[in-house]
Amino acid sequence: MSDDFAPRPTPPMDVLDPACPSRIVFGRIGERWTMFVILALADGRPKRFTDLKARVGVVTAKVLTETLRALEADGLVSRQAFRESPPRVEYTLTELGCSLLEPIQAMREWAEQHVPELLASRERAAVASGE
Amino acid sequence: MSDDFAPRPTPPMDVLDPACPSRIVFGRIGERWTMFVILALADGRPKRFTDLKARVGVVTAKVLTETLRALEADGLVSRQAFRESPPRVEYTLTELGCSLLEPIQAMREWAEQHVPELLASRERAAVASGE
Repeated sequence: MSDDFAPRPTPPMDVLDPACPSRIVFGRIGERWTMFVILALADGRPKRFTDLKARVGVVTAKVLTETLRALEADGLVSRQAFRESPPRVEYTLTELGCSLLEPIQAMREWAEQHVPELLASRERAAVASGE
Repeated sequence: MSDDFAPRPTPPMDVLDPACPSRIVFGRIGERWTMFVILALADGRPKRFTDLKARVGVVTAKVLTETLRALEADGLVSRQAFRESPPRVEYTLTELGCSLLEPIQAMREWAEQHVPELLASRERAAVASGE
């Protein structure tokens, strides 16, 4: 790893500032499958593509591949290829990816706890608008 | 409010189960502007549409309107219209919306803290792939 790419001291970040690069993190987190893939890797055990696909559910192979490549480029997931026959590839969370687990778990707990209220509200809104 | 819409006891939620309704929360949170709108309302003071647009930044009026309607239907944001001339409309977080602040703030802190590492990794990946 070259020092050219080491994180440099940066000015204070503010996700509400349109010019702030921290906003790109919300873009990545906001992509549909990011959170599910990270949660599927949360137990720390390396997973193969097929394991991940089974755990994440309903995602297509193409989209899961794209999601994994993006997470790898962002340094959140590491991909290890073993020279075996047939070839074996395993995915794990990097240290950076593990650090993201805490806020994602908080979001997951909120979702699992509050979804009945949210659904009830959505139902009321649909009735009120005559849908 | 009718009791018909009161939250009912539900089985344990699991966001990794494709059939679990808690997944819809990740869909809503994953929508590009949801987190920014909730953060823009985090100080608890009611905001008008133009204030919100200025705080969220770069979003179009059409998309911000759609985001606010979806958040209102989900019971996360409340909209109050005052019969004045010109008409005044203000948005605030509901109690449910406020409860979502904690996990969103955790995500914001992560983003503001770790974006330099993520950017450095992305830059390395782009160089490695010859982009």
